Amino acid sequence: MRIETLSEGGITRQASGRLGVDTRGQGFTEITDAVAAWVSGTGIRHGLLTIFCRHTSASLLIQENADPDVRRDLLRAFDRLAPRDAGYVHSTEGPDDMPAHIRTVISGVSLSIPVTESRMGLGTWQGIYLAEHRDRPHRRDLIVHLIGA
Amino acid sequence: MRIETLSEGGITRQASGRLGVDTRGQGFTEITDAVAAWVSGTGIRHGLLTIFCRHTSASLLIQENADPDVRRDLLRAFDRLAPRDAGYVHSTEGPDDMPAHIRTVISGVSLSIPVTESRMGLGTWQGIYLAEHRDRPHRRDLIVHLIGA
Amino acid sequence: MRIETLSEGGITRQASGRLGVDTRGQGFTEITDAVAAWVSGTGIRHGLLTIFCRHTSASLLIQENADPDVRRDLLRAFDRLAPRDAGYVHSTEGPDDMPAHIRTVISGVSLSIPVTESRMGLGTWQGIYLAEHRDRPHRRDLIVHLIGA
Repeated sequence: MRIETLSEGGITRQASGRLGVDTRGQGFTEITDAVAAWVSGTGIRHGLLTIFCRHTSASLLIQENADPDVRRDLLRAFDRLAPRDAGYVHSTEGPDDMPAHIRTVISGVSLSIPVTESRMGLGTWQGIYLAEHRDRPHRRDLIVHLIGA
Repeated sequence: MRIETLSEGGITRQASGRLGVDTRGQGFTEITDAVAAWVSGTGIRHGLLTIFCRHTSASLLIQENADPDVRRDLLRAFDRLAPRDAGYVHSTEGPDDMPAHIRTVISGVSLSIPVTESRMGLGTWQGIYLAEHRDRPHRRDLIVHLIGA
Repeated sequence: MRIETLSEGGITRQASGRLGVDTRGQGFTEITDAVAAWVSGTGIRHGLLTIFCRHTSASLLIQENADPDVRRDLLRAFDRLAPRDAGYVHSTEGPDDMPAHIRTVISGVSLSIPVTESRMGLGTWQGIYLAEHRDRPHRRDLIVHLIGA
């Protein structure tokens, strides 16, 4: 097992940006195209992209971008992993709040993706999604950061 | 959906540090203030912060810093996701060891957070926590790394 | 609680590479040594390493490298967290496909590890593993990226 070097070079620049996403309650919003367009627009050709979600009840994940049934099953999986009716102590913000926190911990709020020739190194079937875990629509803020040359 | 660029600039410096955390057994230790003070002290104003936990039975996560009941419910959620009595083969280190490994995989050991104007890009309600998953107190070692200018 | 600075310095270079891993169906393949050799070979002594898995049914995780029973129990834990027989809608690719997607979301596809004096900052018991979640063998592609000086 041996790693083949793809590129080597200098590092000179960084850029950061903000992405606001209006969600429609529980479910996934794909952000791949918006992030790809921004990466390309920075002019940074090689480097490291980070996406960060500034919330405790919405998360970031990478999943299949082909069959929408995958996302439907994923929602049900989150329901099983962190059910609404588990007798939570923290319930003042509604029965969807504590499950939303747990689902956020399980799926995470930061992603790191290498960039080569102005493109994220995603596989063919990988899409980047903001996962809203609350019942109601929310405005969610993401930060993107790109470092490279 | 469009990303608004917040800042662009050069990249010149990096710094790394070590944070030792004495835990008191299962539960969460907030490290937000310690990390924020170090970030500010490096003099690096824009960049990318990484926090890494050097253990397989303690993890790093971002969660609500307001109501402590959230952390209490989160502990119970970990108990459900990775119960103590699941008939593990690996049990020589005690009944809390294998659940601790599983909980660490679920919640993760690395976090990446963009830094803008000497501050981490955390949302209002986000705190950074070291999660101890073993029953007994442990000394846990974290590495922080900041790259930027 | 106070962070002790370990190193400070410039940042001048980056490198990226590709690692292909042939898996033998469900289970873990350790990649620690391959990554360590590549990091050392780049000549970058201090910086940040990122590993990214370009798939939606295989993931990256850090776990105990000592007792193989830990990985055996971890496989069983994944079985409980995302069982095969949960009545998934997305089932055309086989009963192992949707559980593989869920297990990938739970364990994640990117890892960030600080590098000091040409070595990853892993703890004594930490190994880096590619987790194959499909039943059949697959060729999996990883990207590694190192930024530093």
